[in-house]
Amino acid sequence: MSDAFIDAAANLLGPRGLTRDAQIVEPWLTDWRGRYTGRALALASPATTREVADLVRLCAQHRVPIVPQGGNSGMSGGATPDESGNALILSLRRMDAIRRWDDDAGQVVCEAGVVLQTLHDAAAERRLRFPLTLGGKGSATIGGLVSTNAGGTQVLRHGTMRAQVRGIEAVLPDGTVLDSLAALKKDNRGFDLKQLLIGSEGTLGIVTAATLALLPQIAARRVMYVGVPSAQHARRLLLLAQEREGDALEGFEIMPRVALESVLAYEPSARDPLHSPHTWYALLELVADEARAGDLETRATALLETALERDLVEDATIAANETQAEALWALRDAISSAERAHGPALQHDISVPAEKMPDFIDTASAAIEEAFAGTSALAFGHLGDGNVHFHVRAPEGAKAGEWERAEGKAISAMVHDLVTEWNGSISAEHGIGQVKRDELERLADPATLTILRSVKQALDPLGLMNPGKLVPLASDAPAA
Amino acid sequence: MSDAFIDAAANLLGPRGLTRDAQIVEPWLTDWRGRYTGRALALASPATTREVADLVRLCAQHRVPIVPQGGNSGMSGGATPDESGNALILSLRRMDAIRRWDDDAGQVVCEAGVVLQTLHDAAAERRLRFPLTLGGKGSATIGGLVSTNAGGTQVLRHGTMRAQVRGIEAVLPDGTVLDSLAALKKDNRGFDLKQLLIGSEGTLGIVTAATLALLPQIAARRVMYVGVPSAQHARRLLLLAQEREGDALEGFEIMPRVALESVLAYEPSARDPLHSPHTWYALLELVADEARAGDLETRATALLETALERDLVEDATIAANETQAEALWALRDAISSAERAHGPALQHDISVPAEKMPDFIDTASAAIEEAFAGTSALAFGHLGDGNVHFHVRAPEGAKAGEWERAEGKAISAMVHDLVTEWNGSISAEHGIGQVKRDELERLADPATLTILRSVKQALDPLGLMNPGKLVPLASDAPAA
Repeated sequence: MSDAFIDAAANLLGPRGLTRDAQIVEPWLTDWRGRYTGRALALASPATTREVADLVRLCAQHRVPIVPQGGNSGMSGGATPDESGNALILSLRRMDAIRRWDDDAGQVVCEAGVVLQTLHDAAAERRLRFPLTLGGKGSATIGGLVSTNAGGTQVLRHGTMRAQVRGIEAVLPDGTVLDSLAALKKDNRGFDLKQLLIGSEGTLGIVTAATLALLPQIAARRVMYVGVPSAQHARRLLLLAQEREGDALEGFEIMPRVALESVLAYEPSARDPLHSPHTWYALLELVADEARAGDLETRATALLETALERDLVEDATIAANETQAEALWALRDAISSAERAHGPALQHDISVPAEKMPDFIDTASAAIEEAFAGTSALAFGHLGDGNVHFHVRAPEGAKAGEWERAEGKAISAMVHDLVTEWNGSISAEHGIGQVKRDELERLADPATLTILRSVKQALDPLGLMNPGKLVPLASDAPAA
Repeated sequence: MSDAFIDAAANLLGPRGLTRDAQIVEPWLTDWRGRYTGRALALASPATTREVADLVRLCAQHRVPIVPQGGNSGMSGGATPDESGNALILSLRRMDAIRRWDDDAGQVVCEAGVVLQTLHDAAAERRLRFPLTLGGKGSATIGGLVSTNAGGTQVLRHGTMRAQVRGIEAVLPDGTVLDSLAALKKDNRGFDLKQLLIGSEGTLGIVTAATLALLPQIAARRVMYVGVPSAQHARRLLLLAQEREGDALEGFEIMPRVALESVLAYEPSARDPLHSPHTWYALLELVADEARAGDLETRATALLETALERDLVEDATIAANETQAEALWALRDAISSAERAHGPALQHDISVPAEKMPDFIDTASAAIEEAFAGTSALAFGHLGDGNVHFHVRAPEGAKAGEWERAEGKAISAMVHDLVTEWNGSISAEHGIGQVKRDELERLADPATLTILRSVKQALDPLGLMNPGKLVPLASDAPAA
């Protein structure tokens, strides 16, 4: 069976489109975080939507499971095959054309394999910008970003990937092509299939292209870094900034002193921008287009003055130039790497209703530290989105690997239980993939699980689309 | 069977919750536009989500079809039962509580039966606003607006209902309750079921409550009315206004001279705000919050001066006060009624990619008028959304009713064919309901139809949720 399939696929895709060369395939068998390693029948790299469609049909005929893959920089193992070696990795990286710009309408049609940084650069050349960015921008592809409904640091103002997608082209599990690339601002012809595919992590079909929204380039920005006494103060500062500046507030990130300290220890070039230590920090970014750039400095200063007067912040600095602005952002962006360098920790990408996040951080941190002696919890990230990365550091002297194996499951379960109690999400922006599939099954309400399974079964009755990811099928449950 | 069901339902809902009194039921058997009249087993009016869930379960047991109904002011017959008399009308109107305000987070939890105008008024008392409005605001309910993904005149800036919904509570076809009211700005736990239910017209479940986004009240607005030589000029004016004013541009509507003339003829109080006639008109609204209200007048004037200099507009006026602003909006809002008073016409709620709309209007109007002698086409509405209401007026002397029966199907088919050729939507904001179900089947691409049917079958295997609406099931097709 497998040989016949390989022959047919090789015939379909040509030598550049299909390989079983172990050296070429190997880097794509392990996820970016190095948590999962699988095996694969082959690596397919179709060059056109037509080839993807033909290949998917061929896979259906031969019952070959498909693992769609973009930049392979996802956080949840969603693009890594299992260990059976039965699945085909279907890479979209060769489909990297920017098909069409429409500057007037403020949109662009990108194929799935376009790398985010490439899109940023190409848009900048046209004095436009694509308002979504994240750490993995050098590898993350448009297809992966759509399939995982990616977030990042501009969600506060511009929303997640879902908000940027105006149209979609996808190959469905039976090999038919859904062409909804035409960007209609209003379209009420039934269930919104585009919305269904966004964030479905390749389990319902393969995104081959998307029409994305663009904005005019910003003319100026002001980045501020402030010390605040608590996360509650940070939230009040956020509300003040939103009230005064509305849509000009494009970024609002928080981090505790311990996170700043690990960045300062890990990054030789990092400097504490404030004179004395504070319990919490917030990073704010105000942006303006040409028309409003003139008074941006004045407005930023006035905002901080009001915040100081109202005792919301203890100290503050405004970046005087782009270099300083980048340096302030680097303090935020380096936290993940610094934390990894600091020692073993469990990471959780969680959200709760935004107004509750400060109290959640306090309550959950205390509960975890009490339940697991010696651990310490820290939370940082997108306060304005109600989304933080909640890390639980191992006790002093704990052995990396060993500690996670011994305690990881119980600690993460407790974090997820707390999030669920607070009506939150156990995956705010990283998706479910493999890493949270069992937790989704454990914690999702039964009505949600039933619909997830029904929709999956309806659209992918053969179960060939990224099997084992996202949807906890009833058949995945351990026998009772 | 039916008696046992009625007894059980009456027992469940009590005398206020279930009636078969013909006088009470009768007004709810005909749709607002008077195009469809059906019959019903009874009118159920549950008071709580629990009662809705129990009732839906009872309906499933007895195989009783359900027609969910809000204000019964939909445009597509989606809330009207068929003529069999087998279906239960499930009215959400008794569930009219505003459950919870959260002013800080800018959101409110409304039950399905809350009338849009009631929400507007209640929000205004708190100095907030709900940024979606439409002609039927005095009857349209939140549940109906969510289920049909309603649009209106503020979509340009704020999006359709989909963009306002932060959380949802719904009863699924098996009677389970999906509680996703918690407003999470980021939540990547699988397919977005909220998005699936929005716009599904009661065919996948019954929306019982929603968490909706609120904005601060606007502090000032400026309404402008301009004469332009063509729809292409109107589009260029729109781009200019967006470039200069960005999010301050909240409304941009267009209408041709003939539409203004029928309003002037039909509305005794209406006055032509410009000195001489123009081929096309555009209505613009700029809004500002407290912080930006000061220079709104100056900016509005400067925008119009630039537009005049660039020959985009021929003449313009700015409302000097709220009364004048209302009078300008009344010229737009009265078009539908004025057109009905003018004589028989076929109405089409269509969209194409926004940048193509001016050319579409010209091309489609000419094509229709040529193909159907004596007719005249006019288009008006939401140019910024790429959505107009495309009316085809009957030839002089044609008899109302008779003409539509004789020519309606062919004319509408041609309009829809043209829209489809231009990659547009045959239903931009009014939904499919009964009125466009067959056209959806005729024109949707096969991949879309397959998914619509699969999802419907998966979530509502008994086919009891608003049968005959939206989804053209294979079994609905006439026998070949």
